[in-house]
Amino acid sequence: MTAIILIHCVDQPGIVARVTEFIHSNKGNVLSLEQHVDRSAGRFFMRLKWDLDRFMIAKEKIGEYFQTLIAAPYGMIFDLYFPGQKPRMAIFVSKMSHCLYDILSRWESGEWQVEIPLIISNHADMQPIAERFGIPFHLFLVSKENKAEQEARQLELLHRENIDFIVLARYMQVLTTDFLKYYPHRVINIHHSFLPAFAGAKPYHAAYERGVKIIGATCHYVTAELDAGPIIEQDVTRVSHKDSLDTFVRKGKDLEKIVLSRGIFLHIQRKLLVHDNRTVVFG
Amino acid sequence: MTAIILIHCVDQPGIVARVTEFIHSNKGNVLSLEQHVDRSAGRFFMRLKWDLDRFMIAKEKIGEYFQTLIAAPYGMIFDLYFPGQKPRMAIFVSKMSHCLYDILSRWESGEWQVEIPLIISNHADMQPIAERFGIPFHLFLVSKENKAEQEARQLELLHRENIDFIVLARYMQVLTTDFLKYYPHRVINIHHSFLPAFAGAKPYHAAYERGVKIIGATCHYVTAELDAGPIIEQDVTRVSHKDSLDTFVRKGKDLEKIVLSRGIFLHIQRKLLVHDNRTVVFG
Amino acid sequence: MTAIILIHCVDQPGIVARVTEFIHSNKGNVLSLEQHVDRSAGRFFMRLKWDLDRFMIAKEKIGEYFQTLIAAPYGMIFDLYFPGQKPRMAIFVSKMSHCLYDILSRWESGEWQVEIPLIISNHADMQPIAERFGIPFHLFLVSKENKAEQEARQLELLHRENIDFIVLARYMQVLTTDFLKYYPHRVINIHHSFLPAFAGAKPYHAAYERGVKIIGATCHYVTAELDAGPIIEQDVTRVSHKDSLDTFVRKGKDLEKIVLSRGIFLHIQRKLLVHDNRTVVFG
Amino acid sequence: MTAIILIHCVDQPGIVARVTEFIHSNKGNVLSLEQHVDRSAGRFFMRLKWDLDRFMIAKEKIGEYFQTLIAAPYGMIFDLYFPGQKPRMAIFVSKMSHCLYDILSRWESGEWQVEIPLIISNHADMQPIAERFGIPFHLFLVSKENKAEQEARQLELLHRENIDFIVLARYMQVLTTDFLKYYPHRVINIHHSFLPAFAGAKPYHAAYERGVKIIGATCHYVTAELDAGPIIEQDVTRVSHKDSLDTFVRKGKDLEKIVLSRGIFLHIQRKLLVHDNRTVVFG
Repeated sequence: MTAIILIHCVDQPGIVARVTEFIHSNKGNVLSLEQHVDRSAGRFFMRLKWDLDRFMIAKEKIGEYFQTLIAAPYGMIFDLYFPGQKPRMAIFVSKMSHCLYDILSRWESGEWQVEIPLIISNHADMQPIAERFGIPFHLFLVSKENKAEQEARQLELLHRENIDFIVLARYMQVLTTDFLKYYPHRVINIHHSFLPAFAGAKPYHAAYERGVKIIGATCHYVTAELDAGPIIEQDVTRVSHKDSLDTFVRKGKDLEKIVLSRGIFLHIQRKLLVHDNRTVVFG
Repeated sequence: MTAIILIHCVDQPGIVARVTEFIHSNKGNVLSLEQHVDRSAGRFFMRLKWDLDRFMIAKEKIGEYFQTLIAAPYGMIFDLYFPGQKPRMAIFVSKMSHCLYDILSRWESGEWQVEIPLIISNHADMQPIAERFGIPFHLFLVSKENKAEQEARQLELLHRENIDFIVLARYMQVLTTDFLKYYPHRVINIHHSFLPAFAGAKPYHAAYERGVKIIGATCHYVTAELDAGPIIEQDVTRVSHKDSLDTFVRKGKDLEKIVLSRGIFLHIQRKLLVHDNRTVVFG
Repeated sequence: MTAIILIHCVDQPGIVARVTEFIHSNKGNVLSLEQHVDRSAGRFFMRLKWDLDRFMIAKEKIGEYFQTLIAAPYGMIFDLYFPGQKPRMAIFVSKMSHCLYDILSRWESGEWQVEIPLIISNHADMQPIAERFGIPFHLFLVSKENKAEQEARQLELLHRENIDFIVLARYMQVLTTDFLKYYPHRVINIHHSFLPAFAGAKPYHAAYERGVKIIGATCHYVTAELDAGPIIEQDVTRVSHKDSLDTFVRKGKDLEKIVLSRGIFLHIQRKLLVHDNRTVVFG
Repeated sequence: MTAIILIHCVDQPGIVARVTEFIHSNKGNVLSLEQHVDRSAGRFFMRLKWDLDRFMIAKEKIGEYFQTLIAAPYGMIFDLYFPGQKPRMAIFVSKMSHCLYDILSRWESGEWQVEIPLIISNHADMQPIAERFGIPFHLFLVSKENKAEQEARQLELLHRENIDFIVLARYMQVLTTDFLKYYPHRVINIHHSFLPAFAGAKPYHAAYERGVKIIGATCHYVTAELDAGPIIEQDVTRVSHKDSLDTFVRKGKDLEKIVLSRGIFLHIQRKLLVHDNRTVVFG
């Protein structure tokens, strides 16, 4: 049994000593510790994982004790996780299967410690794939007129299923700010460009027109501003004048699925901390 | 003795057969041939290098014969080069030495078949480096008031020295449209971002603010619109939350010098063809 | 309707002119042409794709005419393909699903023009996946004792199904030289290292022990000598001291599936030519 | 004024708490802290940098106090550095200038906090470059017969100049085990291949023969066994059938200089720890 804590606060002397002493003196054993200080912002970040086997504070009391003894005096914001409890992930998808297969095959093989209670889509195309993997598929036909209503129904479903976070696996709808406020930094998107280049619609068209020599994909948390949320992971691949728009799309799909899956895995492992619209990605 | 011809025209049947037959029937030996058809634009591109040793048309007549017999009937635009004649390159530089050293050390070692008759700068900082390599250094202090006048003097110098093309090795001045019209697709710049992301001033600051996970550099031909000319080469390197603005700049400098030098080398080898603000880069 | 021809022969003057004239004079239209001369070996390679719509030689006669008129006098070795006829690919797999899913999802989405009539395995683990995609799954339990016999049965099945080429998608058995002679340069393997480093068994263990900072994967044609066949494609990813053997394996799997699929796609498109244990990979 | 300490020992509970408490209780301020536990080897590694401005233990006493109070009870091996004191680096070079220029231009621009008191070579070719940068150049003509004697003279020079570490910037001589014992994990080499592939002489020839699609360079500490020392950094670049041996060499040179310089910079910053022939590279 282990615990993970993610912390950030104003930088100040003695934080590491105080936190590690708290773990050590209560007979916890530090399994990994990473800290980062953003000097320009004067901010401290830490991820700490420790063994609970002989820890003297009961699991359900750790948050309260940490808040009282350490977080309050240091002005910390923290999140506490127990890796033994798998997070529950919903997938939103439209018509393309490449990211969906990549996610489901990792889940099926046991590569990820995650549960996938449901898949939501605005098209029926991916239903057969969901069924092959035995995952309930929910169709929500979204139009301009019914968008608010459909999002409300989606949220109800997500809450009923205790969904912790959402993955947009090439979901071709913009979520409203109203929706997003229920999942702050808990909606992961893959954008098919090297952001901030080619934000918005049709990035491969725009990249082709511009004559770039490298294309990319960006995994980020969704925020109210389109394609402007905190970046989790990016990667690129070479293209040349020999490539057409079709081969941009084909090469890009390989990037998209790998970059999205890397981002999801970082989230599942609780290695991501967001501050000031940027991510700290602990190794 | 060899010749290189770069061709482009509307795509039409039989071009390769006609051009290679022209070479072959006149006892030229094709050393390399690359062709590309841009299907969406309906345009044909070709680079051909051949051995002149037994070629039956005199070197100084090749252009005329090719124009009459082939280019005119097919509506081709072509450029003819003789690699034995080294192109003459001017370097424009401001205060940073990394690109300058990279260029000069390649030139000195014989890696490039190019002549460097002069270095132009708006600051005196790089003068000692130019002198170490025995290259004349010309200082042109440029201000808003005297910019037109100084560019005119620079152009006079460039023409007097028969300069074929110009390299902006982190030159911190924008060249005017008036200047550029004398060197169309003959001014090579290095921009310290992955264009079109972060065009304009202070790209590392902007990239740092945005929280990107990869930074890049772009080598391009300069056109009237800032940072929007045809891209020759790009490359990227990973960054993380651990990087500061300083390390963005330091890592970026390694990219800049390598990407710029790759672009220059492609230009020297006559492997670049520009059409519709994009480059064809022959392998 | 199009045709693709792959050619190699001793380098000699006039080949391109002669071949393109053959296409052009018979009213074929060249769609793409790539040629390569290996100067150190004095060898010429070419891939040419042309439109057959108005071609004056009947499809089934092209090979004969080309042999008589061009290949014989120039001493060429050539292969002729008609992209309209999908190649038939067999997949050999053992216990891991990542490459298999990557292949099947591309096939299902129509990304590749290929048929997959069967999957062969020495374990039953992947049978459910094959069934989901509706592909016949054949179990051949292979032991030292029955290997010759099982390979004979596999060959019989492959011939009966008119299999053109075989993909080893992390198949954990070595094919015998006897088997391979029926599929020369038609068995594609993925090796989980950056060959020639870490050939043979347990490459991730060896890479971890050596303390490398980058791991790789290599797609190659299988030949009699283990892991020494012509390399089709390679790629790499960064690792660090933070990685364990487990994360080497996890990161490596992403490389394996992408590199294998790139190699397969090149093969399907007839872009690969093998000579002297090396590949020419036409763009 | 800052201090850096590099520590490794058998993994055991409470190390981080104990060390950070030592810094904190003596009024030091931790600037950065990185720790790593190699679970398979059961070993703990840490790099800690702290501010000495108000530190209560005098700089020259820190080592003694740390040894007595912490290192001894925990069985730690540690190294203590004061970044204000620039390390002294000797460069060994033969006939090629690309790594040498890369190193000297970084040093001259102030990118690295290092002193370069001397350059040693077995050829006179690089003497003019050394002189341009005002660095004493020492020629040691090495033959089979005089190797022991020349190494003895080199060592005498290195000791007289208080050299801390040595960089082999494409130095084409093997240093003897006798020599190396004076600079354990203090001789940095660049090997022009992706080790362990193509160790030994002529790696580009071997890579070309093998038909690889990617070539690499490896920066490592030199040990008694040729090209088998702890790897510091590696990088790769793509090649294709279009590349000749000459272009392998040319592309490789760009890799070599960048990878070597990255390795040197890590060493200068005291970010490298060696254990069991592998490096821990602190971010």
